[in-house]
This record gives sequence, C-alpha cells and structure tokens, in this order.
Amino acid sequence: MIPETLIEEDIKEWLKEDIPYWDITTNLLPNKKVKAKIFAKQEGIIAGLIVSEKIFTLLGAEWSANVKDGEKVSKKQIIAEIKGDIKSLLQGERIALNILGRMSGIATTTAQMIEKTRKVNPNLKICATRKTVPGLAKYDKYAVTVGGGDTHRFNLSDMVLLKENHLSLFSSISEAITKAKETVSFSKKIEVEVKNEEEAIEAAKAGADIIMLDNFKPIQAKHVVKKIREINQNVLIELSGNIKIENIEDYELENVNHISSGSLTHSVKNFDLSMLIE
Amino acid sequence: MIPETLIEEDIKEWLKEDIPYWDITTNLLPNKKVKAKIFAKQEGIIAGLIVSEKIFTLLGAEWSANVKDGEKVSKKQIIAEIKGDIKSLLQGERIALNILGRMSGIATTTAQMIEKTRKVNPNLKICATRKTVPGLAKYDKYAVTVGGGDTHRFNLSDMVLLKENHLSLFSSISEAITKAKETVSFSKKIEVEVKNEEEAIEAAKAGADIIMLDNFKPIQAKHVVKKIREINQNVLIELSGNIKIENIEDYELENVNHISSGSLTHSVKNFDLSMLIE
Amino acid sequence: MIPETLIEEDIKEWLKEDIPYWDITTNLLPNKKVKAKIFAKQEGIIAGLIVSEKIFTLLGAEWSANVKDGEKVSKKQIIAEIKGDIKSLLQGERIALNILGRMSGIATTTAQMIEKTRKVNPNLKICATRKTVPGLAKYDKYAVTVGGGDTHRFNLSDMVLLKENHLSLFSSISEAITKAKETVSFSKKIEVEVKNEEEAIEAAKAGADIIMLDNFKPIQAKHVVKKIREINQNVLIELSGNIKIENIEDYELENVNHISSGSLTHSVKNFDLSMLIE
Amino acid sequence: MIPETLIEEDIKEWLKEDIPYWDITTNLLPNKKVKAKIFAKQEGIIAGLIVSEKIFTLLGAEWSANVKDGEKVSKKQIIAEIKGDIKSLLQGERIALNILGRMSGIATTTAQMIEKTRKVNPNLKICATRKTVPGLAKYDKYAVTVGGGDTHRFNLSDMVLLKENHLSLFSSISEAITKAKETVSFSKKIEVEVKNEEEAIEAAKAGADIIMLDNFKPIQAKHVVKKIREINQNVLIELSGNIKIENIEDYELENVNHISSGSLTHSVKNFDLSMLIE
Amino acid sequence: MIPETLIEEDIKEWLKEDIPYWDITTNLLPNKKVKAKIFAKQEGIIAGLIVSEKIFTLLGAEWSANVKDGEKVSKKQIIAEIKGDIKSLLQGERIALNILGRMSGIATTTAQMIEKTRKVNPNLKICATRKTVPGLAKYDKYAVTVGGGDTHRFNLSDMVLLKENHLSLFSSISEAITKAKETVSFSKKIEVEVKNEEEAIEAAKAGADIIMLDNFKPIQAKHVVKKIREINQNVLIELSGNIKIENIEDYELENVNHISSGSLTHSVKNFDLSMLIE
Amino acid sequence: MIPETLIEEDIKEWLKEDIPYWDITTNLLPNKKVKAKIFAKQEGIIAGLIVSEKIFTLLGAEWSANVKDGEKVSKKQIIAEIKGDIKSLLQGERIALNILGRMSGIATTTAQMIEKTRKVNPNLKICATRKTVPGLAKYDKYAVTVGGGDTHRFNLSDMVLLKENHLSLFSSISEAITKAKETVSFSKKIEVEVKNEEEAIEAAKAGADIIMLDNFKPIQAKHVVKKIREINQNVLIELSGNIKIENIEDYELENVNHISSGSLTHSVKNFDLSMLIE
Repeated sequence: MIPETLIEEDIKEWLKEDIPYWDITTNLLPNKKVKAKIFAKQEGIIAGLIVSEKIFTLLGAEWSANVKDGEKVSKKQIIAEIKGDIKSLLQGERIALNILGRMSGIATTTAQMIEKTRKVNPNLKICATRKTVPGLAKYDKYAVTVGGGDTHRFNLSDMVLLKENHLSLFSSISEAITKAKETVSFSKKIEVEVKNEEEAIEAAKAGADIIMLDNFKPIQAKHVVKKIREINQNVLIELSGNIKIENIEDYELENVNHISSGSLTHSVKNFDLSMLIE
Repeated sequence: MIPETLIEEDIKEWLKEDIPYWDITTNLLPNKKVKAKIFAKQEGIIAGLIVSEKIFTLLGAEWSANVKDGEKVSKKQIIAEIKGDIKSLLQGERIALNILGRMSGIATTTAQMIEKTRKVNPNLKICATRKTVPGLAKYDKYAVTVGGGDTHRFNLSDMVLLKENHLSLFSSISEAITKAKETVSFSKKIEVEVKNEEEAIEAAKAGADIIMLDNFKPIQAKHVVKKIREINQNVLIELSGNIKIENIEDYELENVNHISSGSLTHSVKNFDLSMLIE
Repeated sequence: MIPETLIEEDIKEWLKEDIPYWDITTNLLPNKKVKAKIFAKQEGIIAGLIVSEKIFTLLGAEWSANVKDGEKVSKKQIIAEIKGDIKSLLQGERIALNILGRMSGIATTTAQMIEKTRKVNPNLKICATRKTVPGLAKYDKYAVTVGGGDTHRFNLSDMVLLKENHLSLFSSISEAITKAKETVSFSKKIEVEVKNEEEAIEAAKAGADIIMLDNFKPIQAKHVVKKIREINQNVLIELSGNIKIENIEDYELENVNHISSGSLTHSVKNFDLSMLIE
Repeated sequence: MIPETLIEEDIKEWLKEDIPYWDITTNLLPNKKVKAKIFAKQEGIIAGLIVSEKIFTLLGAEWSANVKDGEKVSKKQIIAEIKGDIKSLLQGERIALNILGRMSGIATTTAQMIEKTRKVNPNLKICATRKTVPGLAKYDKYAVTVGGGDTHRFNLSDMVLLKENHLSLFSSISEAITKAKETVSFSKKIEVEVKNEEEAIEAAKAGADIIMLDNFKPIQAKHVVKKIREINQNVLIELSGNIKIENIEDYELENVNHISSGSLTHSVKNFDLSMLIE
Repeated sequence: MIPETLIEEDIKEWLKEDIPYWDITTNLLPNKKVKAKIFAKQEGIIAGLIVSEKIFTLLGAEWSANVKDGEKVSKKQIIAEIKGDIKSLLQGERIALNILGRMSGIATTTAQMIEKTRKVNPNLKICATRKTVPGLAKYDKYAVTVGGGDTHRFNLSDMVLLKENHLSLFSSISEAITKAKETVSFSKKIEVEVKNEEEAIEAAKAGADIIMLDNFKPIQAKHVVKKIREINQNVLIELSGNIKIENIEDYELENVNHISSGSLTHSVKNFDLSMLIE
Repeated sequence: MIPETLIEEDIKEWLKEDIPYWDITTNLLPNKKVKAKIFAKQEGIIAGLIVSEKIFTLLGAEWSANVKDGEKVSKKQIIAEIKGDIKSLLQGERIALNILGRMSGIATTTAQMIEKTRKVNPNLKICATRKTVPGLAKYDKYAVTVGGGDTHRFNLSDMVLLKENHLSLFSSISEAITKAKETVSFSKKIEVEVKNEEEAIEAAKAGADIIMLDNFKPIQAKHVVKKIREINQNVLIELSGNIKIENIEDYELENVNHISSGSLTHSVKNFDLSMLIE
C-alpha cells in the first residue's frame, strides 16, 4: 500500500482545504470524549480504510476498523469505530467519508465487473486507465486493486503506450516498436494501441508486449483476437474503448487478457457511508 | 474564478503525479509542431477551460478556446484548439481531459437539475455540498457555479452549520443558535439542520439564517416549509438528503430556497471529450 | 482553534527559516535535560499557547502551560514550564516567543479596546480587518478572538464586501447589491462600504446585510446610524477608518454593531515575554 | 535583494491564504482595464517595492514604481502606478499594501533611530534582532537594511551568539569562547552576551569577535565600554536590551559599534498607504 | 526529458538552499549587463543543459547553448553563453555548475563503460541502479541515458525486483514468481535476483522477465548465462554487483543483456566546468 | 545537528521520489516482523545515522545504532540494528543506505585528508566548498564536520566571498573590501580570493578576514603565505583550487589556516554498506 507517512502528507493538504482557518462550528462545542461508528448504507467492497484512519489519528482520535480493505460489507454493517474529542471527529468526518466513499465506490464497481466476466474467462483482468482524478491517482489505482482489478500503468513514466497520435510520427507501427525497444529501458513494457486488423497483425509481428484493441466492436474484436493468437500465443491482448459494466457482456472475452475501463475511475459512483456519534 | 497563478501550482502537482520521471513514450518522438482539437463527444455544459489552458501553456503549448465556461456545446463541437510541440500536447492531454471532463460533468448535471426544477420554482437554487473530492474542492465548487448552481459553504471556516451531532451537545436548538450568534463572527451565517417539524419550528423562532430539512419525505417537507413560513417569511429553507436528478421532481419546491445534492460532486458522470491531433 | 496538525506544518516552515542548516551555537553544548519557564514581563491577555507548545514538542521537549488562552496574566507570572534537552529549548525559544508575543499583543490590545467601549455599548464588537501579516492571517485573526474580538471575514472567499472600487463599476449601489444577491452563494453575507449618508440609505434600502461607514467623523457617524436604523432595525452597522485605541472614545457607539480596526493587526505591540532556564 | 523567483513562491502562499477558493466580490465585476495609484498617507522611507510589484504581476497586472526602496517619500506622494484588469488590482491590493506597509514601517523607524544617533556617533549601526515575524524574517531583515540599519545575524546558522543560557553549561566564558573557536567554522563570527563588567572583561580577553552588553544601564554601559576598549580596540561592542527610539538618546554611544533593537521588527508601526483606482 | 516546469520547481528549492536570505556578496555590486561563458575543463559528455539553462532564466538571464545533451566536448570547449545582470549570473553560477558537473560526470562515465564493452557485445546495455542521490533520482537517471545507458527501473513502483530478502519469505523462487505474475499489474516486468546456478535455472523456468546474476565471479557468470540460454533464449540477463569501469573487462559479456552498476550514480566523478565572465 | 523534524520533511520527499505510488514488490509479501543489520563493507568514518534512523522510524520500524556519527568502523562491523515489518525495512533500505553511504563517504575522505596533513600542521582545517549536491547541502556540510572538517560558509547569505568576478567591478581590491565592511552586516566575515602575490598583499593590508589563494602552485603559495604573515599575523589564509587527497602533500601547509576542497563533496566515493535481514 501507499506508505502511511505519505498518506499523511496528502491528508494535511485536504485538511487545509477544508479548514483553511478553523472550524467555526465545532469551535462552539465543549471538549467531550465521544465514540462514533462508521457504517455502510449499501452493500459493496470497502477500500481506503487506512486513509480514513490516518485522517482521524492526525486529528487526535483513535480508530479501530472492523473490516479490512477488500472485504464485502452489507448494508448497515459497522465499518469502524472511532473514539476521541467530538471536535476531532466532526472535523474529520466529511473528508474521511469522501475518500472512503470514493475508494469503496471504485472497488465495488471493479468487483462487479469481475463478477460479470468471471464465468466466461476467469483469468480476464479488469484494468483501470489514467482517467483518474488529478491528485488522487494513487488512491484511485489502489482502490481498483482492492476490488480485484489491475492498475494498468500508473503514469507516463512506467510503461510505453504507443497510441494513434504517437504512431502517426513513424513510418510504420513496426518502426515505432523497434525504436521503443532500442531506446526505452529494458525494465518497461511496450504496449501498442491498434484500430484495425492490419495494425493488430503488424504489432503482433513486431513484438509488442501488449496489443490494445481500441474501440473494436464485439464481433470484430473476436476475429482480430484470433488472428493475433495465430501469430503469437503469449502477447497480451487488451480491449478498450467505452467498455463499462453495462455493456461488458457483449464482448466475447476468451483469449483476451484484460479489459481497460475509464469509467471505473472517471465516473465513480460514491459508496454510501455514514458516521454516527453515540 | 480561482486565481490563475494558484491553478498553476495545482497543475504542477498533477503533472508530478503523472510524470514522476519523464514521459517515456513521447520521448521516442521527434520534436514537431502540430495542431490539435479538443471536441465534445456529448452534449452539455463546459466548465474548467482555464484549467486545461494552463496545463497546456505550462507545458509550452498555445491554447485557443472556441467556447466559454458555461456554454452549452453539442456533440462533435470543437471546444478548443491547441498548437505546440507534439510532446507537450501528448503529455498534457490526459490530465487536461480528466479535469475538464470532471468539471464539465458536474456543470452539466447541475444544469440538468436546474432545468427540471425551473418550471416549479424559478428561484430555487441547486447547491453543492462538501462531498467533493479531496484536493479538488474549489474546482468542484466552481463547476457547480458554472452549471448555474450555488456553492453552498466552501469549507468548515466560512459558515456555521449545526448538525445533529453538534446539537446533541446543547440543551436545545435555541441554545445552540444563541451561542453561535454570540460567539461566531458577524460575517458568517448560521444554518441549522433539523430532522422534524418541532426542530424546524424551534430553529425558525431562534433566528437561524438557514434551516435545512434533512431527509424529509416530500410530503413532510411541504408541510414543514409551510409551518416555517408562518413564523418567518425570510429565513432560507434548504432541502437535503439523497435528492438527485432522478428524484428531484418528487418534491414540491415552492417556498423552498435551495436543494443541496451531494451526488453533484460525489458521483460525477464524466463529460466525454477527446483530443485529436491533425 | 486551528487544527494542531496544520499548526505543525507552519512551524516546520518557521524552523527552516531560523535554522536553515543547524544551530551552530547550541551545537557546542553537551546534551543536558533542563527545565525552563516562560514568564510574562507585562500584564495582559495570553494568546497562542498551543502554537508555542507545538514548537517545543516538535523539537522534542515537553510543555506544560499554567494558564489558558484568553487568561489575563500579571507581570512576572509564569505562563508555561518546559522540560527537555537544553538544545531543544534554546532552538525553540526565539520563534516560540515571537509568535506568542505577537498573538498575546494582539489579544491584549483587543481586550483593551473592548474595555473602553463596554460601558457605552456592551454589545459592540471590536473586529479585525484583513490588514494581517502575510502568512499569519489565521494566527492574527485567532488572537483577536482570544482578546474577545470578532475576526470579521477571514479572506476574500468568505464574505462579499463591496467597496468604493467595486461600486464604481455598477450604475448604483442597489444594482450592486442586487447582483450580489443573485449571484453569490446564499451562504455568504453581503457588506457594503459607504462614504456618505446618501449611500448609507441606499444600501440599507437595497438589503445589505452589513453597512460599513468608512471614515465618517464621529458626529456624522452618529447621524447616519440613526438614519439607517429608521430604515432597518436589523442591518448590522460597522464603523471603520483609522479607529484605534487612542481615539475610539470619540465615537458615539450606541446602535453601532461593530468597529473594525486595522491597527489591531497591522501595528501590533509585542507582548513582552521571557524564557528562563533553571 | 531576495531572489525574485523566491519572492514569487512566498506570494503564492499569501494569495492562497487570502483567496482559498476565489474572490467572491470581484467575481461580480465585469473585466475592465483600469489604472490605479499607490500613494503614501504619511512621510517616511519606502521598502518592499519589488514584493508589491510581484504580487500584481503574478495576478496579471503591470506595475511601474515612481520611487526606489530607501527613498524618503512625503505624504500624498505617488509610490507606484498599476495597470490591469480591475479584478487583478482588487485581488492584490490588500496583501500588497500589507507587506509594503510593514516593510516601509520597519525602514522608517530604523531611519529615525539612525537620525537620532548620528550626531553622537555617525558610525553607530542600528541592528535588528531575530525578533521577527515567523515566515517573514528575510523581509523584516531586508527592510532594516533599506532603512540604513544592519541585519545582525539572519538566523541560528550564521553566527555564534553565546547567551546566558549557553554560558551556564561551561565552566567559564573563556572556555566557551575557546570551544567555539575550535569547533565552529572559521567562516562564522563569535559573539558573547555579557551581563556585567567582569564578564565583559573576560570575553574581551578571550577573543570574542563581538561583545553584547545586555540590559546595561546607560552609565554602566559607558563605564564597561571604556574597560573593554582598554583591552581590545577592535572588538565590536553591541548594546542591547529594550533600547528603542524613545530611549536611545539616554545612552552614550561613543565607542559603541552597534545597538540592537527588537522593537524594530517585533512592534512594527505600519506605514500608511492607500491604493486609488482612477 | 523531465517536464521543464517541474525542473523549475526543483531549482527553486535549490535556490532557497543556497540563498536562504539574499546573496550578501553580489548585493555589493552595481547592476551591470555582462556576458559569460561556461566551458569544459576536461573532455567528456555533456548532460543537463536544460537544467542549467532554467537556473539562469529563473534568475532573469538569457542562455544560449553551443552543444546538446549527449555531445562529446573537448577541453576548453565553450558549452554555453549567458547574458544578463552580473548578479543573476553570479547567483546562479555555483548551482548551475554543480548540477551540470554531476550530470555530465555521470554521462561521461556511462559512455566510457559502453565504449569498453562495445567491442565484445555491441548490444549490451549499461544500466543505472537505485543508488542515486536522494532528491535527484530523475536527474541521475536521465544523465545515464544521455551517456547512452539504460535507467533500469526508476523506483519501487515501476518494476518488480525480487531480491534475496523478498525471496526468503516464499517457499521457492517459482512460488514468488507465480505470485508476482498473478498479483502485479500486467504492465510491470518481473526481475529476479539470483545468487547461484540453481536459482538462476529455477527463475528461468518459472518465467521471470529478467534474471539478475548478483555478485557472480566472471567465470561463474559465463557458465550460468549459458545454462539460462539453454532454457530460454529470450529472458533478459543482467550482471550486477560491484561491476565498475575498472573491472568490467574481466567479464565475458556475450549473451548478457545488461550490466547494472551502482557506482555510475553513487560515486560520481564530477565533470570539471568553469564559468568565465567577460 | 539539523533539527530532526526538518530531516523528516526531507525524507518524505525522498520517499515520494522512490515510492511515487507503492512498492509493488514488497506488496507481494505477508506482514512479518523481522530484524536486520546494517554493516560496513569497508573501513571508515560513519556519518548520517540520525538520517537513516528517521527513514526507518517514519516507515514504522525501530532502529538501534551500535556506533555514533564520527566513529571509525572496521569492515564487517555492525552499524545498526533494525526491527519491524519486513515491508518497512525493504522500503527504507535503499534510500537509507544511499544517504548513509554518501555522508559516510564524505566523512571518511575528510578524515583521510586531515590524517595526511596532521603531521605538518595539526591546526590546519580541511574545508568543504559550496560544490555540494543541490538539495543536500546541509547533509554534505554536516558530513564534512563529522569527518573533522570545517563547513566553510553554508551558502551565499552567510559570509562575503569576493571572487575574481566580483572584484572586476571595483577599481581595486581595497575598494571592494572597504565597501563590504561598510555595507555588510557586522555579523558576517569577509573573505577575498586572490590570484597573485600583489593581490594577496593588497587584501591583507585592506583588512580582509580571510584571504584565499586560488590555484597557487605549492612553491608560490609558500612564498605568498610568508608575505601575508609579514603584514598580518592573524588574517586567516586559505588554499584552494584542485587540492585533493591525491596531491595535498605537495603543499607546504605551515602558516596556512585551511584548505578548501571541492572534491570532498562534488566527487564523493560512496561508503560501502549493506543491510542483511536475519
């Protein structure tokens, strides 16, 4: 997981945003030790407990979680209990629920997509994209793994992904792949995005590590996957382009290695949570 | 709008997140001046142009927008044109679309909610909550205003909002309001969240600036609004609690001043955009 | 109060400023546990104890305060006792006294102004302005509240204040107020600065929440306050413009709600404190 | 002067403090190019022009100063002219005047102290202390030099200053000085604070670079200065301890090298300035 | 290359370190436009020009380079010419030469190692490790690529590297590799460090992407490389462990894919440069 | 030493650099409490223990050192023992060894230079320069003191050093020194770099605190030192210019006060260390 000391640095920024001067409402209250419970208002997968914990502990409260990241919780289930001064609890409540709600929402949808595809292809990976919220990439990506998904590359520094716009500057896909193999560190993989059968075949022959079929119709995808496999049994094949939980079952997923879905992180459905002070 | 020099500071953090070392893919490309277009792939309200512009200009490219924040665009409409080295354009593309997609998504939904309620009550304000994404509160709030909505309070420092958990530490709602009036700066308003008719009436009598009916059923809300108005014509009345675009029409909104909706910012539907290099 | 974890972030910046490399004087000393006392060298109100405490605890020492923020102390009274390695104590001494001296100085002067006006108008609030020291706004504002004063708005984001320069872009004060009411969030109040009777009356009629009489002579102020009250009993009235402890008694303060005074924070008289190692 | 690019970094923090979200008042205004003038409302020495300039230029306006740092200005004199969008000017106005007012206030008082002592000892230096405002040390120190004063050490890393609390851990002043000479870099000077004649003589004999007579009465100071000069013609002699503009003339300053005064920076009288939009 | 806007952020930190208050020496000088030249005092490969350029341009000077990163320069060759105020040039000189000297030193040694191994195996890559200087990893890594080397993984987030300490927690190397393949994103490669023939063979069979022979003697390395190749022609083979320019020729490098050398970045020999003002 | 709370701030930056998302390798491991030892793989002086300690404690582990900064250790000697979760240990290992290796390398070379010169001149100080690594100046300087050396000035704010480029803007060296004495704070020393006998004599007569003979040949240096001593017994004399451990014995060092050597910090030989998990 993200190092806890770095999570704390992010949280301090979030606190500054939400309390630029001081909390004028809790300032009206006396100091009083209280207990609170965070509970689920829906069913789903919890992700981000360590982040919420750090929010409350930085504010001086104690946190004790009843579940672990990745666990499936039911409606009304208690997620965590918190003890501390009522001011700490009320100052941390909103941002703790905001991040926990977002991360759990991502994990829950990821798990649902995996559930849907498991029968057809139990090895298929559901992947995130770089369509994350600016500033929260590592939290969004982590939430995807908690839901059982794959992060895909984290950022522009850790894998080569040659897309249409990059390829247009080379004479051919083969030339682009060759250049990448010669130039980029051996420690990075090389993925190529293709938009038709011909390109897919060229990429397979040129030795791409991963071929992404972008915006292929289900039937077309099925055909091209077969063609690629005739050339190379081992190259990884990714489907991409507006595939979401609503339409994932339209695709034949055998022989496909992973599906990447921007909606996992760009259109998050918040997981519904609440904090109740006793 | 947010001061541009401060937007730039945020963007540098986002760039560090997405390019912690360097972009190993665009590094393969020659320098080449190109033009690109950002266009809408759906209908809706655009928000956040200045943020996208700054992303590209910080990377050395030129930006020229065809529309303004708040304008309604149609599918395929060109939003902006960018000129510069292909590396700059490709390095900025993803985060520029991520923030523009989020902000425009928020603005679009806000506008849709307003559209729905306009006939019943043209003065009704649709408001955000503090259920924003950590680190992006000011962008989320700004996007709501672009869509025609109201930011509600920005953070814990700029308005008093006495919720159930706060009120439980006072002997009565009246006492809480009195304490707030005496203690908090005259420059801040005082809002009270109530959960039944009795509390609503007490808050109205005690002189709250705003009364929030939290989780009232439509019919109950209608009744209590009337009761409040009998006491005070001018107090602002807010409805809250799981009100979203899907169910907003269930509420009778006459005499209500504003609706606050967490889903506007906690469950954003990304606005679909694309960048095409010519 | 300001969240303690955020105070610590500020303190680290202050320590970097004062110890950019290391303290070459205390570096000469052996490690030795000592006790020290911070005591007042004048009478007045103490403010900022938590800030000083955090300075010493961040440096590894223990702090125990004998008084609380807002308490009146007498000359020679011991404010706090500190235990720890002599190096920690000597490294923290200066910045701890600098901030405690500034904040207590502000609180003391605020309390003195209130003392002076209490007899005439016990409900009158003494307010700060935005004439704070860059980087210390929240500490300056907090110190004012400790002295019994009112923060006024914290910053440009949390209240509308229409001054002469803003008003000049509207056809009338009424138009400006109307525009603000329509455009700005319901969560913010609207204050208008006026420079003569006519403007004051217009502002009162147009529904400003607060009217600031700027640079009115005492007799003129008295007259205009009366006129405003004839229009609106409830609008808040603020006097401003070079009102300080030396001349505050010149003003008739009945029916005025608050006085704002830049000198409270722009021309602070440091509270005299000393640290003595036993 | 402080590198301009670093001044800009500080200003961004100050802007974040004053505009954490956006300026809700200027947001009501149309864009409009205007001119403004900053003028003095009192006589004195101006300091900090480059800081104010950077505030406005970061906000997109143009600045043109009529005077230079260190110049004496008269009441009503125009200090600088600014052109730009009215929003930029109004957003920058307050913090620009806050820092310019503080720095000019420091410079003005420093110059007044020098004026007072010039006749007796034209070589006497008026020095600052480390009693600066946390976060603004370099601005405070710079303002002192603009007024003709001496910064004294900047911080704990750039000169040794052995005070009573340090000395108490050595068997003698001589031992402390010897230890410092052996241990501390040759690049740093060694100052010793003494509280009576005996200590002063010991410090002079042990080879301190500077001897500070702390809290000596005027007549006692005169006597001890003479004794030190009998031992060492070249050692620098500093008087310190509650010496301010009000009482500086009580001291006989011949043969003294410098006076350090905490009040120069801990109890600043703000220089009165105003910005007028044409 | 590293985005220029992010390089600027690093430089501001370096300037703060070197000029925490202001440059008291250049402050003595009048403003004067001058020209300066940076020239090489040794032969080698230049790296880091953009970083030096940004240092001077942030300080207000103009920079014009005569060579490009990666070019071989001879002793006395002029690298760049700078125009600007003498203060800017003198304030930037030292840190500009420090970073340019370090980066060029790294590039030069990298190129020398490649030169030595080229005859035996022209495809052999010379790689950096994570033995970089804290805070400068991306500059150190970039300098290696300028010298013709390979960055190896940038950090702990972008490739799996199972070392002895990791492997000890698994029942076997195979188990570790299988776990990694199942768990880690498809976008990351998996490298395994082995310390003897048996481990090497197991890693090859289990499907590691890269096998690192750690601290093998030359003759042993030759033998094991052959064994690995019998199992898998395509797996990448890395030699590591105290291999530096002095002893690299002892190793038979045919069939080896890359050598990683900590000394490239942990024991840099500074490239000798000087700045001369005309 | 550098305040520990500020060391922690630096470490967080280094951790972000090395773990921008999370450590994908240790993420594969179960939680398991282990012990580890850091031991020396060479003889030399250890420096930087507190920095390594803070790296591990920030990651949640416990550290216990067997030696102190400045102690000479032998090959295979255990430096410190660490207990904690294996993930913490493996995440901190590399940066802990990187900084400890660099600082100990600097201390070791410094001690070796001192060893070499001790017989000739036991009072001679070996000094660092500002040729440190950007971002690590205080660590580099501190390591020099641990090795027994002198930091020289820390930065451009804490001593005047007039070099050739500065002097060229004055009519004479005397004029420059006079200007500096008049203008710069009494708290700073004034050093002048000279390139021949004539300049050295002028600087000595004009009252420089330190004279640096830059790039003098050994025999020339000996002659000029004698000349300076005839004028002033007390002025400090520094030799500089490509003096390193390899050639330091060529110089006659009697009557010289210190030698400054850029190579101490610009061409560090890393101290060889290893961490072993039990």
